[in-house]
Amino acid sequence: MPWLPTLSLTLLMPFGSATDPSGAEGAATVLHEWMQRGAGDLSSRQLSDAFEDLGVRRGGNAGRETSSLAAGFLAADADKALPLLADIVMKPRFDEAEFAPSVELAQEELRSLEDAPTQRLFEALTAHFLASPQRRSSLGTPEGLEALTPAGVRQDAAERVGPEGSILALAGGSSWEELQPVIGATFGDWQGGSKPVPAPQLAPQGVHHVPAETSQVQVGLAYPSAMVGTEEGYLYSLALNVLSGSMGARLFTEVREKRGLVYSVSAFSRALKGLGYTLGYAGTTTERAAETLEVFLAELDRLAEGVTADELERSRTGLLSSVVMRGESSGATAGRLASDAYFLGRARTLAEVSGKIESATLQQVNDYLAANPIPTPTIVTLGQMPEGGLGAMEAATEERA
Amino acid sequence: MPWLPTLSLTLLMPFGSATDPSGAEGAATVLHEWMQRGAGDLSSRQLSDAFEDLGVRRGGNAGRETSSLAAGFLAADADKALPLLADIVMKPRFDEAEFAPSVELAQEELRSLEDAPTQRLFEALTAHFLASPQRRSSLGTPEGLEALTPAGVRQDAAERVGPEGSILALAGGSSWEELQPVIGATFGDWQGGSKPVPAPQLAPQGVHHVPAETSQVQVGLAYPSAMVGTEEGYLYSLALNVLSGSMGARLFTEVREKRGLVYSVSAFSRALKGLGYTLGYAGTTTERAAETLEVFLAELDRLAEGVTADELERSRTGLLSSVVMRGESSGATAGRLASDAYFLGRARTLAEVSGKIESATLQQVNDYLAANPIPTPTIVTLGQMPEGGLGAMEAATEERA
Repeated sequence: MPWLPTLSLTLLMPFGSATDPSGAEGAATVLHEWMQRGAGDLSSRQLSDAFEDLGVRRGGNAGRETSSLAAGFLAADADKALPLLADIVMKPRFDEAEFAPSVELAQEELRSLEDAPTQRLFEALTAHFLASPQRRSSLGTPEGLEALTPAGVRQDAAERVGPEGSILALAGGSSWEELQPVIGATFGDWQGGSKPVPAPQLAPQGVHHVPAETSQVQVGLAYPSAMVGTEEGYLYSLALNVLSGSMGARLFTEVREKRGLVYSVSAFSRALKGLGYTLGYAGTTTERAAETLEVFLAELDRLAEGVTADELERSRTGLLSSVVMRGESSGATAGRLASDAYFLGRARTLAEVSGKIESATLQQVNDYLAANPIPTPTIVTLGQMPEGGLGAMEAATEERA
Repeated sequence: MPWLPTLSLTLLMPFGSATDPSGAEGAATVLHEWMQRGAGDLSSRQLSDAFEDLGVRRGGNAGRETSSLAAGFLAADADKALPLLADIVMKPRFDEAEFAPSVELAQEELRSLEDAPTQRLFEALTAHFLASPQRRSSLGTPEGLEALTPAGVRQDAAERVGPEGSILALAGGSSWEELQPVIGATFGDWQGGSKPVPAPQLAPQGVHHVPAETSQVQVGLAYPSAMVGTEEGYLYSLALNVLSGSMGARLFTEVREKRGLVYSVSAFSRALKGLGYTLGYAGTTTERAAETLEVFLAELDRLAEGVTADELERSRTGLLSSVVMRGESSGATAGRLASDAYFLGRARTLAEVSGKIESATLQQVNDYLAANPIPTPTIVTLGQMPEGGLGAMEAATEERA
């Protein structure tokens, strides 16, 4: 992106809650925080000052399978910013005094989940949808966080933070010729262990309720679907975008506009390594929860009948437009490249993505949908018990099955 | 931004909850929704399809003083997208059938506020901070929404939606020479009323509590401050960025890192026409609420003693970097231009913004801070009653005053 004065970077590392040591749930989150509090010759404060002296904007988070560091800075400062970032993963100080605040921060983040019902719903949904350790929240558990020790997390870092499987993606106003020597000089000697991420496994489909004092009922659903960026993934994305993703999309019109059942409704793709899946969401009232779910499931079923030529063209235009728009930002681009490399094993060009979206035919999309009906989702509601209990919801899914 | 294939647009119109007719609180939100459901020759569905056929990404919202339509599309489609957007404000259909769903959507949005404690806090804080009609939430009230009628909202639209005071800002891969004829042809005949937005007025400073079933206590504070983009505003922004806005900022280190009092803490500038103000936020526990507030207030006081040369340089670098990063996006740029035109009466260039940030001296910043100590904020807590009640908080603010 030679027209930009900035350079953005995402460093994706294959450690997350799925590989947290047993009994130490939340270790990845604390590790991710602690490693950024002082590195190389610099204390936590000095490191933070050094980044700020360069105007580096930092981000990143600890996830289920991977954790990331993200940064954006002036491309001309790459030779100063990259060594600081490399120090975080290669030479974290792990000062004892910074350990307790790192744990406390994680504990407070976990507690704040109580006041975020939608996020709580998705945590519960993922826990019911998966059987493998990816089901564990990256926020950890109160017991797991409590059990962490400085020595334990240092040991954990040695076993999980290393170059194997790590991905460094850069986008912005620089070139590989300029960057390669700097990256070689900074990350070239990185040593450290790696722990294989287990393959994701699905739990049996089911319907579950999480009681909570909320005003809305939060309804979530999850089912496996094609991985974004694969041949099937493009066909599925075009279909999913007919279902959700714009004001004229089927879910929006059916559930929200025509029947006024909910304030927000959506469905979107997510991925773990080797598993694409789709999450659906609706926020509604106890009275309307069962009907909202029925309409949602009916729309999922109806996909098997295919989409119309008009719907496909609109979906295609929408996806192409969003590819172009996201392509403006160096940060979004670096994130996409890292994600591509992790899930697909290679980074796609925007031209490839656009070409695939452009070339998919109505026949291909509808053949795919007919051959791959949406499986019955795992469903979780959070809030007050929906009117009629879970019976109506279970009936709706059994009817399908 | 000739390097971009896209064009982004923000149309800011001077109607919002502050000018909602009395007894019709929420009218602006319903009007904003209803006007987008069919315009010119197109029904709601046809209009939505027309936008999607062009791959237009739409946004915008109804606010307190202003409401906006935002859109992003391929620059080459400007002559097709602009007339559709113009029709929304110039020829809304206001079909009867679309009225009830528009109201219902607003009602559900208002109800969903119950499950969003931080947003609720800021609504309550603004209501206590202001005495003028800007204190009214753009979400409206249950009674106000219930009282709306199609005829009433149509009349309201005629009185409040027009070219006077409206601002159209565009950014992206096009030029004024190309766009001017299209804009003239589409918006040139726009007619409609305008209702003056009252000047914002402050309520007396106070300390208030909103009981709510939350796990955290949400603490919010508000005080008047320099308007962003004015000479004083640049000096204040540089100081505020020493207080909050990066990991090394004073609030973050004092409140969050050193004492582990809260999960999140921040302070940021906002504006109404003619009034700059600052909002502060902390999410904490009942036990720690009073101490968190004390530390926060102490940091506000300490600003009068000035910032160090190091702090100023870091703050400056951070602001400059964020100016450059936000400059990547056509959507963010269009939003900034519209906001500049509304608050300052003219759009600033990025060079002007950067120049002002670069040229401010330590002496200027510290003289400004010494001459303009932070006034005692209005404080609102939401959640369980903080330990010790509001007494400790009131004492803390009285001590200051």
